[in-house]
Amino acid sequence: MFRTHTCGELRLTDVNKATTLSGWVQTIRKFGSITFVDLRDRYGITQLLFSETLNEKLELSPLGREFVLQVHGTVSERSNKNNQIPTGEIEILVNDFIILNKSITPPFTIQDDTDGGDDLRMKYRFLDLRRQAVRKNLELRYAVGRSTRNYLHEQQFMDIETPFLIKSTPEGARDFVVPSRMNPGQFYALPQSPQTFKQLLMVSGYDRYYQIVKCFRDEDLRADRQPEFTQIDCEMTFVDQEDILNMFENLIKRIFKDVKNIDYNDIVERMTWENAMWTYGNDKPDIRFDMKLCNLKFPAHTFPEKNNISNLINGVDFKVFDEAETVIAIAAPGCSEYTRKQTDELAEWVKRPQIGMKGLVYIKCNTDGTFKSSVDKFYNEEKLKAIANAVNAKAGDLIFILAGAEERTRKATSELRLHLGQQLGLRKIDEFKLLWVLDFPLFEYAEEDNRWVARHHPFTSPKPSDITTMINNNPVIENAAEYLKHPYANIKANAYDMVLNGNEIGGGSIRIFQKELQQKMFAALGMDEHEQQHKFGFLLGAFEYGAPPHGGIAFGFDRLCSILGGSESIRDFIAFPKNNSGRDVMIDAPSSIDDKQFDELQIKLDLKA
Amino acid sequence: MFRTHTCGELRLTDVNKATTLSGWVQTIRKFGSITFVDLRDRYGITQLLFSETLNEKLELSPLGREFVLQVHGTVSERSNKNNQIPTGEIEILVNDFIILNKSITPPFTIQDDTDGGDDLRMKYRFLDLRRQAVRKNLELRYAVGRSTRNYLHEQQFMDIETPFLIKSTPEGARDFVVPSRMNPGQFYALPQSPQTFKQLLMVSGYDRYYQIVKCFRDEDLRADRQPEFTQIDCEMTFVDQEDILNMFENLIKRIFKDVKNIDYNDIVERMTWENAMWTYGNDKPDIRFDMKLCNLKFPAHTFPEKNNISNLINGVDFKVFDEAETVIAIAAPGCSEYTRKQTDELAEWVKRPQIGMKGLVYIKCNTDGTFKSSVDKFYNEEKLKAIANAVNAKAGDLIFILAGAEERTRKATSELRLHLGQQLGLRKIDEFKLLWVLDFPLFEYAEEDNRWVARHHPFTSPKPSDITTMINNNPVIENAAEYLKHPYANIKANAYDMVLNGNEIGGGSIRIFQKELQQKMFAALGMDEHEQQHKFGFLLGAFEYGAPPHGGIAFGFDRLCSILGGSESIRDFIAFPKNNSGRDVMIDAPSSIDDKQFDELQIKLDLKA
Repeated sequence: MFRTHTCGELRLTDVNKATTLSGWVQTIRKFGSITFVDLRDRYGITQLLFSETLNEKLELSPLGREFVLQVHGTVSERSNKNNQIPTGEIEILVNDFIILNKSITPPFTIQDDTDGGDDLRMKYRFLDLRRQAVRKNLELRYAVGRSTRNYLHEQQFMDIETPFLIKSTPEGARDFVVPSRMNPGQFYALPQSPQTFKQLLMVSGYDRYYQIVKCFRDEDLRADRQPEFTQIDCEMTFVDQEDILNMFENLIKRIFKDVKNIDYNDIVERMTWENAMWTYGNDKPDIRFDMKLCNLKFPAHTFPEKNNISNLINGVDFKVFDEAETVIAIAAPGCSEYTRKQTDELAEWVKRPQIGMKGLVYIKCNTDGTFKSSVDKFYNEEKLKAIANAVNAKAGDLIFILAGAEERTRKATSELRLHLGQQLGLRKIDEFKLLWVLDFPLFEYAEEDNRWVARHHPFTSPKPSDITTMINNNPVIENAAEYLKHPYANIKANAYDMVLNGNEIGGGSIRIFQKELQQKMFAALGMDEHEQQHKFGFLLGAFEYGAPPHGGIAFGFDRLCSILGGSESIRDFIAFPKNNSGRDVMIDAPSSIDDKQFDELQIKLDLKA
Repeated sequence: MFRTHTCGELRLTDVNKATTLSGWVQTIRKFGSITFVDLRDRYGITQLLFSETLNEKLELSPLGREFVLQVHGTVSERSNKNNQIPTGEIEILVNDFIILNKSITPPFTIQDDTDGGDDLRMKYRFLDLRRQAVRKNLELRYAVGRSTRNYLHEQQFMDIETPFLIKSTPEGARDFVVPSRMNPGQFYALPQSPQTFKQLLMVSGYDRYYQIVKCFRDEDLRADRQPEFTQIDCEMTFVDQEDILNMFENLIKRIFKDVKNIDYNDIVERMTWENAMWTYGNDKPDIRFDMKLCNLKFPAHTFPEKNNISNLINGVDFKVFDEAETVIAIAAPGCSEYTRKQTDELAEWVKRPQIGMKGLVYIKCNTDGTFKSSVDKFYNEEKLKAIANAVNAKAGDLIFILAGAEERTRKATSELRLHLGQQLGLRKIDEFKLLWVLDFPLFEYAEEDNRWVARHHPFTSPKPSDITTMINNNPVIENAAEYLKHPYANIKANAYDMVLNGNEIGGGSIRIFQKELQQKMFAALGMDEHEQQHKFGFLLGAFEYGAPPHGGIAFGFDRLCSILGGSESIRDFIAFPKNNSGRDVMIDAPSSIDDKQFDELQIKLDLKA
């Protein structure tokens, strides 16, 4: 037996007990002839006291940091108590010890605040994982998973495993593929999600399915993407959108409670995609703070139902605004006293290539009721006041205005809003705000192919009111220039995203369950009947045998954990993440394979020069 | 809202309630102007009664089997009660109905006893999954998983995800590989198990890890193997074998209780590998019944410590036994009255190529105390009696004796024992007997390479008493003919298999955690230092930084579920299994991929003529 107790277990009530502990040497401190060692394991840290009787043995077998140590001793009350840790009132008077294994000097010390930088951390991930900061993240991840499983179990969901070796049907992202030795010339694909399988389970009557499951996408990696990632994947039968929203906002509330002990009693807000784009400039707004966008001018086709107030800025011969497709303003609360340096810095910030704007107009709404702007030459006090009213700016606020091409300008204003929100401390790390974004467009237009692409995925149903529009119209776009006039351009998806603090943590939809509608969707995406059969014949077939109405959702597990853990980086919440080149630098993968493997798989390299 | 209740929910206490149900049409029965429909969902079956007021609508919208139906109606007491199902006391008087989706005629009816045969079942797996028999299997699987998670959680295990895109280190089975687009010419491998990662987690101090996780092996498939399969994968730190055996026999007992409501109070038997081979002829004996093997003759090197009793059969000039390397007997209880036809059939059975023996000797131990054998010519009554005593046969038993080459004969006798056990009804489907098999040989001899291979895997530690033998000897086999005399031939592994009813359901070991010993192991397997570094440098590196003693186990989840479900076939417990060619015939995978995919991956086919 290696231990009678863990390093996090002993208390004052255990004093005088004989104990055996095993763990890692965190620190060694010598005071005269006495040696103190902090012994660490997953459960805590316990102080060991080696009296001078052990000095001879300690000289023969000197200890070092990260040595694995087993000690026998007696629990004793500490004179110098440490109330920072649960074991801080006791220490172990060591009778004897065994060094179970030694350690060479780690490349960085195993402490919260020293990680040696990203490259070293990843190469020595097995040491990085010893740091409490990282362990807490994985513990949180486990807690989120467990809370999820418990809630879904209570709601009669069943965990059903779907296959990993499936068929390549690239539609959207790239598949990872796996050559089949037993079927030479053929390949499996790793699933981008269990989408079609979970739908088949609904056709099979399983009613409520879930899985916490690895998914794979072979995309060029951005800082916060991983080629393999984990989803909480769910599907339900005989439900409409309302059923799904209720079920899964309660899942997230349950996770808040179980993992963070937060009672999330607010009603979860809902917002149409159009309003999200209008009001926040993106489809995953951070609603912890206000600073809504004011669209002073925008192309008529973008938001046909919104009121264009371009008269506020037109007619003064200010070319920047006159020539811009879009002009958007936001008011930063209480910033009217910003210095020239500060506004210049923000102007530089929006001019960076990542944002890509040409400049930044500001209007200071002074506390005395006057206005001061960078465009005083064009706009008199009255006009500035009218703009400030439209932007809902109060005295003391600072209005920023961006102008330019529609999409870029909206995106830039949204980024500026988040940047200012951060600067102003409005994005509080311990505040959580959920939001449902609804009524996405079903289709996007793919210019290069002059066809539609599915915004969510090809299995998403249109809103019930749009089904006949979809069925009764030819998806072919006759006139590319006027694609916006095609009836498909306005079809809304029966889809929903869950947004937490400005991050999309989950998304899903009510699915198509009628063969005819599914075929229409495939046709809209440019698949002829042959391709439909080849790729999705099994699904179209299944829809002929009594497919029920169904819908579902998938949450990005890595992202959800990182937000709950107050971090921007999902990597910190994955035990063994890959870097931006998709490499695991610890095990050095991917790597070359043997000639024998090539031979058996009947493939060879075809490297470009 | 599609339903107010499920089809398994309504009872007599709900009579007169208004209800809305949705489900599938199981059966339709017309009695005069009244139509009865059994409506089915995952939760049960509810009888619907369509009175004649609905006949007109039914004629316009006729129902069919497997149609998806929504009905509104009133709960009513049935006159003709069905006490076979929980909803059998009520029926729904239907007011109105909506056909949510139609179904063409399924290729087989959705009933327990009609599955249309294996090929149809797999092609239409989404219909096969509707059958209650299959659904019960997946429900059992979910229950086993949940029980496992709950137990391990209570024991402070953490579910930690390990990566799926790892490095190819073929050692034993073949890896599935995944070409890396971002690292041209390089490949990931899919994990055969998370072995090294879970060991790294122990090095990182996670103490108790588990995962229910997919693993992959590209092997030629036998009837009951799948290229992707699921493991309950566990690892613990600061444990010896005894700790592991206790922890995990309690896991299985907990599963028995949670899933089958069985109190398994017996002490779990333990048996050395040598005794299992000696007594049952294989390393996963079914100990639900006795019929132990009696080794009448065997090569001296096989079981050096066992007593050779070949004098019982020698010296009568019976060439079959004299020339055989091995002679093994078993006694079939109460079979002395077997007819000539029955013994002939068994003789034919052992001569089949799968068993491969030349013949079968029998000795009838008649109830009157006399003996009658197929070798009366050679053995007199006294000799037969002596053999019967050795075999522990009682009056009324029938002794079978097989002779031939050692391994084949032992295997054949073991098979014959299981065959007779089955025939005699001694392998009861509702009886469960657990067994630990211990002390496996650490190495097997690989003749073609004249080197050692790891019987379990290269991370398994020798028994503590054998560590110095391993460290202090050169693993190289100088004299191939005398490999049995090499000190490594007798090293025992600190490994354990859990056997349930003659099936290995789990296996594991105490791991090597010392760099020097691990290097010695790799060297024994024929890896030079360069190869060791290339394949397992990360592990050897990790062992330098304070690796703790640790060990673990992995259970075959598919197999465990199938045994608990009383089935021989793991496929029945997998939602979407593959066939013996590794194909998913429902989705038709694997399949060809696009030229664009080849191009991006920089590989091409190299098909053999």
